[in-house]
Amino acid sequence: MDAVRVGVLGCGNVGAALVRLLTADGAGIAERTGVRLEVARVAVRDASRRRRVHLPSGCLTGDAAAVVTDPGVDVVVELIGGIDPAGTLVRTALEAGKPVVTANKELLAHAGAELFEVAARTRVDLLYEAAVAGGIPLIRALRESLAGERITRVMGIVNGTTNYILTRMAEEGASYADALAEAQELGYAESDPRADVEGFDAAAKAAILATIAFGAQVLAGDVFREGITRITAADVAFARRLGYVVKLLAVAERPDKDDEEVAVRVHPAMVASTHPLATVRGSFNAVFIEGDAVGELMLYGRGAGGMPTASAVLGDLIDAAHNLRTGGSGRTTTLAPATIRPMDELCSQYYLNMDVVDRPGVLAAVSTVTAENGVSLASFEQEGLGDDARMVFITHKARERDIQDTLEDLRGLDVVKRVGCLLRVIGPE
Amino acid sequence: MDAVRVGVLGCGNVGAALVRLLTADGAGIAERTGVRLEVARVAVRDASRRRRVHLPSGCLTGDAAAVVTDPGVDVVVELIGGIDPAGTLVRTALEAGKPVVTANKELLAHAGAELFEVAARTRVDLLYEAAVAGGIPLIRALRESLAGERITRVMGIVNGTTNYILTRMAEEGASYADALAEAQELGYAESDPRADVEGFDAAAKAAILATIAFGAQVLAGDVFREGITRITAADVAFARRLGYVVKLLAVAERPDKDDEEVAVRVHPAMVASTHPLATVRGSFNAVFIEGDAVGELMLYGRGAGGMPTASAVLGDLIDAAHNLRTGGSGRTTTLAPATIRPMDELCSQYYLNMDVVDRPGVLAAVSTVTAENGVSLASFEQEGLGDDARMVFITHKARERDIQDTLEDLRGLDVVKRVGCLLRVIGPE
Repeated sequence: MDAVRVGVLGCGNVGAALVRLLTADGAGIAERTGVRLEVARVAVRDASRRRRVHLPSGCLTGDAAAVVTDPGVDVVVELIGGIDPAGTLVRTALEAGKPVVTANKELLAHAGAELFEVAARTRVDLLYEAAVAGGIPLIRALRESLAGERITRVMGIVNGTTNYILTRMAEEGASYADALAEAQELGYAESDPRADVEGFDAAAKAAILATIAFGAQVLAGDVFREGITRITAADVAFARRLGYVVKLLAVAERPDKDDEEVAVRVHPAMVASTHPLATVRGSFNAVFIEGDAVGELMLYGRGAGGMPTASAVLGDLIDAAHNLRTGGSGRTTTLAPATIRPMDELCSQYYLNMDVVDRPGVLAAVSTVTAENGVSLASFEQEGLGDDARMVFITHKARERDIQDTLEDLRGLDVVKRVGCLLRVIGPE
Repeated sequence: MDAVRVGVLGCGNVGAALVRLLTADGAGIAERTGVRLEVARVAVRDASRRRRVHLPSGCLTGDAAAVVTDPGVDVVVELIGGIDPAGTLVRTALEAGKPVVTANKELLAHAGAELFEVAARTRVDLLYEAAVAGGIPLIRALRESLAGERITRVMGIVNGTTNYILTRMAEEGASYADALAEAQELGYAESDPRADVEGFDAAAKAAILATIAFGAQVLAGDVFREGITRITAADVAFARRLGYVVKLLAVAERPDKDDEEVAVRVHPAMVASTHPLATVRGSFNAVFIEGDAVGELMLYGRGAGGMPTASAVLGDLIDAAHNLRTGGSGRTTTLAPATIRPMDELCSQYYLNMDVVDRPGVLAAVSTVTAENGVSLASFEQEGLGDDARMVFITHKARERDIQDTLEDLRGLDVVKRVGCLLRVIGPE
């Protein structure tokens, strides 16, 4: 059996884990799958640095472009991340007829359409299971198992860092700042945590998920995005009392079942504690899928980490190698851009907290504002805070535009001292 | 684009749903997947009966064998169930070079090895996503996404009927008999419920899962099997007090990580309520997978029902049609029989309840018996029942053989009036 020769671009956490899997269990993999994979070249930023992975001499190089064009490389694994030079390298490989496996969500969310076009034209695999939700076999499920399904909604916890922070806030009553600091200490969060906590990472993944689920091109810029930085321990505790947990969700849906418009967004949400997503704790990821025929599905697992992500890359590599050997090819279709429904036309239930002056007539003032904006309250609670009071409510389903107008009007009331966090509610309504 | 012509064998719940999906959304499926599927022939038991699905005249026939050999049929979907004549029909199709999609767990668990050999020889797809856990994209995840993974354990709730019954017992305090009667009224359980409640259905699925997960042939007869009929409302309530829920689990594992021996079993178990499987309620299914690199995964969804199962069949059909068109083929490997570790060599924690005479010295007698058998108690509780007492305990990890000897010795004590349910415990230990 001829080996399929793998060129790996980037040898960080995931790259090193992949090389370790391929070198430690190459024979086992060949026996289980009928495909022999061999690490041919590994491109790193600094080829002179000592590494923990053992490779044949001459295997390491600092020149990623040379790995792509090397005739001794059959398949390219791109683990550099970012848009440039990763995009150019992937494109070059595909143009040369070499299948590419990538874990690069950012690249796909920004330039995926163009790369998939090249892959379709050259009839070469461009596989990316590891780009969303790490080791969870999500992309293949959406692309193949559910290929015939009309999917109506995909809703996921796709960022482990924020889920870790929110879990600590929920279970230990930690403040956002303390939970973030702890996540940083443990290596779950970067020293500059913005990509995670502001939702950029989740938004790139949401764009990829929406593109596959709805068969229309969604870019990162199409995704409405809000992070978790304004969430307080009080919001989380209040959610808990009402039977909810706060999660950062990536949501891609068809708001009208029979319409082709799609809505894609990332924001913190209150999820009913009976919902399967509510049980996803710590740095785990999970994606909840709803389809016309299949009903409800959830896929749960490790969304990050070297080994789980490398496991997903390996699954793709075996696929690509199998296709190379049998002359088959993945299914690549060229997609038209999706029609995006603007955020302010969406409907949801909302949670809102605010600090008000504690005196008669405040509730009347607040409820007049909500009523005037066509927003009706489903539940309401108030607690004293010295001279002030914290007022918290959950609305019935309302339009985003109306709730934003409500917020604006509430901020204008002199009895309202501070308008806090707005959370969309995923619940039974 | 030429249509791929589908011959459907069996038009019950799943068959009718599949025909409905293919006729109602054929154009949508073609657009999403690049494959046009056309229902060419449908074999039914009684072709003269009126049906709710609309088919071109001449499409229906009572002769399944004629559908398989019809030159106007490119792909065969087997939904008849059972071993005969389904096995002969599947084999004939594969021998004729026609891909087969089946949802027939019984056939695969009894004669799968032989059929996969035919498929490998004729290089034709034999796909069976729908055979285990209905609409959940489990088989493809195990076969493809995790192809390179060394899987150590697969543990699932794969029978919706028993999970519905156990959920009612846990949440409503219902007796087994009442919960079963309710499941029968709702159509979740058959009038003869043995295949479900005695664990035969789950055992067939366990054999299929073990075969894929460990790449070695496991047959239904290799699976240790215990059903849920002896579980009482008291067991379920006690489990709850200790932080567990009772679930019927199908478990396939490598008891020693570095050994090739596999253990496959179906039995009710106490699952720690913090475990993701504990949250799977009602008729839902879920499968929890552990692998060396990927860590922990769970896939959750509808394990039965016409539409979810048809959705899984459709995913396979698209795969088979794609492979037919591109000349690729699924990955079929011929597997050697697995080495099965006998049940009595396995280790687990155990829960046991028994009724004893309420007098001094009983605990001493019981604990002497357990100690003599090398079984040590982790927790213990006793409550009065008139002149008697109910004694309940959970052991530390012990060998199955030792616990069975313990049970036998306990039954021999004159202070023990009744030995109740034995449950294996899936917990933090």
